[in-house]
Amino acid sequence: MQMWRTLLAILSAFLCFGAPNQAYAEDGYDLWLRYAPLDSGYRATVAPHVAQIVAATGNPQVDAAADELARGLTGMVGRAPARATTAPVEGAVLLATAGSPLLAGVALPFERLGKEGYVVRSATIAGKRVTIVAGNSGQGVLYGAFRLLKLIQTRQPIAALDIVDAPKLQVRVLNHWDNLSRSIERGYAGLSLWDWQKLPHYKDPRYTDYARANASIGINATVLNNVNANADILTPEYLHKVAALAEVFRPWGIRVYLTARFSAPIEIGGLKTADPLDPAVAAWWKAKVDEIYGIIPDFGGFVVKANSEGQPGPNDYNRSHAEGANMMADALAPHGGVMMWRAFVYAAENAEDRHKQAYTEFKPLDGKFRDNVLVQVKNGAIDFQPREPFHPLFGAMPRTPLMMEFQITKEYLGFATHLAYLGTMWEEVLQADTFRPARGNTVAKVIETPVDAGAATGMAGVANIGNDRNWSGSQFDQANWYAFGRFAWDPQARAKDIAQDWAAMTWGPGAAAPIVDMMMASREAVVDYMTPLGLGHLMATGHHYGPGPWVSDLARPEWNPVYYHKADAAGIGFDRTRTGSDALGQYAPQLVARWGNLKTVPDSLLLWFHHVPWDHRMASGRSLWDELVTRYDTGVGAVTAMQGQWQGLQGKVDPVRWAEVRDFLSIQHDEAQWWRDASVAYFQSIAKRPLPAGHAPPPHDLDWYKAIKNPHAPGQAE
Amino acid sequence: MQMWRTLLAILSAFLCFGAPNQAYAEDGYDLWLRYAPLDSGYRATVAPHVAQIVAATGNPQVDAAADELARGLTGMVGRAPARATTAPVEGAVLLATAGSPLLAGVALPFERLGKEGYVVRSATIAGKRVTIVAGNSGQGVLYGAFRLLKLIQTRQPIAALDIVDAPKLQVRVLNHWDNLSRSIERGYAGLSLWDWQKLPHYKDPRYTDYARANASIGINATVLNNVNANADILTPEYLHKVAALAEVFRPWGIRVYLTARFSAPIEIGGLKTADPLDPAVAAWWKAKVDEIYGIIPDFGGFVVKANSEGQPGPNDYNRSHAEGANMMADALAPHGGVMMWRAFVYAAENAEDRHKQAYTEFKPLDGKFRDNVLVQVKNGAIDFQPREPFHPLFGAMPRTPLMMEFQITKEYLGFATHLAYLGTMWEEVLQADTFRPARGNTVAKVIETPVDAGAATGMAGVANIGNDRNWSGSQFDQANWYAFGRFAWDPQARAKDIAQDWAAMTWGPGAAAPIVDMMMASREAVVDYMTPLGLGHLMATGHHYGPGPWVSDLARPEWNPVYYHKADAAGIGFDRTRTGSDALGQYAPQLVARWGNLKTVPDSLLLWFHHVPWDHRMASGRSLWDELVTRYDTGVGAVTAMQGQWQGLQGKVDPVRWAEVRDFLSIQHDEAQWWRDASVAYFQSIAKRPLPAGHAPPPHDLDWYKAIKNPHAPGQAE
Repeated sequence: MQMWRTLLAILSAFLCFGAPNQAYAEDGYDLWLRYAPLDSGYRATVAPHVAQIVAATGNPQVDAAADELARGLTGMVGRAPARATTAPVEGAVLLATAGSPLLAGVALPFERLGKEGYVVRSATIAGKRVTIVAGNSGQGVLYGAFRLLKLIQTRQPIAALDIVDAPKLQVRVLNHWDNLSRSIERGYAGLSLWDWQKLPHYKDPRYTDYARANASIGINATVLNNVNANADILTPEYLHKVAALAEVFRPWGIRVYLTARFSAPIEIGGLKTADPLDPAVAAWWKAKVDEIYGIIPDFGGFVVKANSEGQPGPNDYNRSHAEGANMMADALAPHGGVMMWRAFVYAAENAEDRHKQAYTEFKPLDGKFRDNVLVQVKNGAIDFQPREPFHPLFGAMPRTPLMMEFQITKEYLGFATHLAYLGTMWEEVLQADTFRPARGNTVAKVIETPVDAGAATGMAGVANIGNDRNWSGSQFDQANWYAFGRFAWDPQARAKDIAQDWAAMTWGPGAAAPIVDMMMASREAVVDYMTPLGLGHLMATGHHYGPGPWVSDLARPEWNPVYYHKADAAGIGFDRTRTGSDALGQYAPQLVARWGNLKTVPDSLLLWFHHVPWDHRMASGRSLWDELVTRYDTGVGAVTAMQGQWQGLQGKVDPVRWAEVRDFLSIQHDEAQWWRDASVAYFQSIAKRPLPAGHAPPPHDLDWYKAIKNPHAPGQAE
Repeated sequence: MQMWRTLLAILSAFLCFGAPNQAYAEDGYDLWLRYAPLDSGYRATVAPHVAQIVAATGNPQVDAAADELARGLTGMVGRAPARATTAPVEGAVLLATAGSPLLAGVALPFERLGKEGYVVRSATIAGKRVTIVAGNSGQGVLYGAFRLLKLIQTRQPIAALDIVDAPKLQVRVLNHWDNLSRSIERGYAGLSLWDWQKLPHYKDPRYTDYARANASIGINATVLNNVNANADILTPEYLHKVAALAEVFRPWGIRVYLTARFSAPIEIGGLKTADPLDPAVAAWWKAKVDEIYGIIPDFGGFVVKANSEGQPGPNDYNRSHAEGANMMADALAPHGGVMMWRAFVYAAENAEDRHKQAYTEFKPLDGKFRDNVLVQVKNGAIDFQPREPFHPLFGAMPRTPLMMEFQITKEYLGFATHLAYLGTMWEEVLQADTFRPARGNTVAKVIETPVDAGAATGMAGVANIGNDRNWSGSQFDQANWYAFGRFAWDPQARAKDIAQDWAAMTWGPGAAAPIVDMMMASREAVVDYMTPLGLGHLMATGHHYGPGPWVSDLARPEWNPVYYHKADAAGIGFDRTRTGSDALGQYAPQLVARWGNLKTVPDSLLLWFHHVPWDHRMASGRSLWDELVTRYDTGVGAVTAMQGQWQGLQGKVDPVRWAEVRDFLSIQHDEAQWWRDASVAYFQSIAKRPLPAGHAPPPHDLDWYKAIKNPHAPGQAE
């Protein structure tokens, strides 16, 4: 009975003091790193292989890897593994860089790992079965540790591992469109994480969790501030704040980048010009870059948005983008810095189809950029629409390092409340064949193949992260952050695999299958209820919240939705073939042939490239008008279907997150209906045709929809 | 051994599955409602008295009280109490309203409780020892339940209770200066809690925790939006969002109020005028108010900031504030609504000392306001400075319901990072003797005494709450939210008692004593390093972040710090005696005599009322100049002392919150030094006197301090 009493006392003490005082509901803060307890059957297969973590200390990334492994295993296996720096026991996990004495006698393929790759291998060393996690750098070890954790999180066997992996792109970078005021342009997840006023003294513990999450998916770089840049970030006061963040991120293998306002030499440098060919300007940038590296030794480099939407740039001085980019790249080169130069440009007084302008401007510059310049090209030529064909620059600049820019934040896909998994969209773009120089050169291959030995590669994602408790504004938008990291690591990855991993880690393996089904269909639903059949850019003005297909009064033609859909009594769509703007001509001949022909263009791009009569007969057998209405209703119906699928998960996932998703789906459904009703009402006023049978008329007249204003919509520019 | 194995299995299951996956660090989210486990000795005295919670269900506030008691007791005692609706057992807690059968045979002083008061009494009913928590309303029961929880949180004996308490003010209201964009004017804790875009569909669980926290300190009202108002809040779309919040708050006894833009009849009503005497305007407001009550049956009423800092108001139509307020009050009266009308007015083209203008404008209106109008008067006549004398309107309008307006958010006291407990400031104001009509009528008495039987009473606090995880932007600013609630409940409360309760509940009883010491000295430290000896309004322009005593170029004289300190070669300070602006003449003759005389005016108000020669001999024996410098250094030294006290608490409070406070104190110290150095440099340039011995010269010259700009400081107006 003595033992009984002792044990009861222990249990009682644990219940009363060891346990948390309050029930901490899951709220999404832990992202895909929940490390939830394993079921006992699987746990029994794991525990013998994670008895101990052995790592020589001193390398910050290896230390971070060991800490993270300990954290994850404690959560999943239920006890903290032993820690050691030498002398592995049976079942140890060895974390080691090449040359470590821990690996003596084991041949590992370090030559295949590059700087950041890793091997995870089951082995026997000195008679002990161990699991090796090794790389050429601490960063590789860190990624390997996250891989081992993922294997366990997704319930894979770990007894006989032999995994070799390495990232296919060098710069895997988030672009935060965060202002120094902490507002976020196109942000739907609260304020900027960066609390500038309290930096550098106070480093919010959340900065570390941000870095952990990024490291777990291979992101190795972050641009802290908005591409619509404020030069103040380059002043010493702010650079010391930036350095404090860089210090937090360093053990997690993340380098800090900043956007540079092209006119900074004037605004904070006291010069009269920012002309890139003026020696004083080049000298200013060189001195500024040297100053930055003095404060942040592993600073990554700059991003510049130049001569675009009102930003200053080299064109202001009749210099080319290459002249501007190279001047700044030369300042960065001695430090190993990278210059990311955005190709998202369209001119204020240019009547040319906006679709064509970036190509027109940049294609002639092919081969003229320094090797440490990455020209950052959006996935499509317009602007992050629910669907666009891939940007014609991909494949068209074979001598220029091009990097992909995806938008993780859903500026055009329903903000935070619409469930829209972007993995399928990104896979569609990355797997698109550019046919340049020949069949098979997909966009993925274009960006992952360095243009020469020293050239950079990369992928940028416009972040959807803010200080909301769940980071991304919704539970499901976490999946887009996650997927971006996975595609940046491997542009050949598949959206469904990524969704499966994310769902299993974030919601639990038991709930993953129906969640993956929801995710895989979700983006097409948005396309259908917002911009079906190749329509695009029909959103309301400025904030892009809700439908505005009727808008025609903005100062510049290409700001108006009517510019994009061109609906009239005869039909709808933008003729971008040779009879129209010939933007299509910027693509390879095979695509010109396929997309230029009404018989072979896919429905999904029909109105992107063609002005099509309302009575045009579609593959479905319906007229274009009937098909359009049908697609709108299909989109709404797909949201209804998701609501049903989610209802089926009640009780199978935690209640707080479940309820949030349920409520967000309800918002999405209402807004999908709003999109459908407003769009149908508007297009019907032009097509002047009856709705197809079985499709309900919009409940209000067109003026009612036009009168809806949302002046306080989130995410607006400063 | 069988039992052993069973128990081990239970323990193991609990460790692996019942426990949280990750160690949830305390981060301040739980505020003063942490309900941390009790030590076993005290727990043993509590447990027998909280064996069961008995409450008839159906009353939402009683249900909330029961749920909160269960939550708190589960956390503190370590097990959930039984719940029942009848049949109390030994040790039950009875929650009941007057007339409940549960109370049969017990005489309770319901006549002393009013609508919201409570009794908490130990009693024996049908042979069972029970604790009664009773009130005339569910709201009283709710407050009583929180009182019982506080007794346990602060380790009081609960075996023999007989507590009767009731609030002394009717409307205990937070004013959120939250914009519809979710930015917060003078907010330093993130975005507005109100996520308007997602309302009414999605009700963040945090809304409930907000309501719980407020209910726990007796706050019964909240104004959701900024006094610099946007009329959109009064449109049906927003009213339905407001209704969703009202629904969440209702069980916690909190009514929703809105600010009303005086020109709303023009902006959203389509009228040509907002003239309060125009029948169409009055009819519009009546219809709007009826509409609101149709959507929110327990709507509280309006707050209006009129003819102040650019806001529209009745003066635009040559009508008085009373005419404006009464028109809207008449619309509210049939529904029991309250009209809170701010007295913070100063005219654009008025050369009169700003100190005098509110009094000049409002005093003649005494007796002209409806009974359901509360004229909302800031604690001082200028604007929430670190120290001001009480506002001369208190005591001067005996026939007008006046309510106090305190500013909880620290616009002028260092934003979120400076530790400044405002309880001492508020006690100082509330205990100030107005001498009107005679000695002893303190400000507290003025506001708690209804001017007639039907008149309203109240206290407003400008909230410091945002969506930061810790609610208030810092751990210690939670104390100001807490203290406001306590003073609104009882204006005669004492700052030290409140600090003790807050510290014990928020940091644990063991850490409370040194924390209370820090708090009690903290506001005087801010006064000393920012605006000692009765100086005021010396902050930098617009954002009020940091020192700007030299600023003299703003459009209106009273916006400039030089207007307030009037330093010149002869001396420093604002002569508000009869030889100057005679603002002092707005106070009672006893105060005119005391404060108007250099011999009797306290040091703390010296320069508020007098222009004093630099060589004036102070009570300390020092010259004014030497005293001024000494005070600045005293303020900085006080922060250094707080840093030392906090260092002593390492390991005695949880590490995450401890580290945050440590870092914030470091920011405060740097900024106190900045204030001191900049102010000393500036005033020395005018006084042209050497620093007293032992006081270091500022490390930079005056121009260096003048050059500091903070364009991205938080909390700026839209």
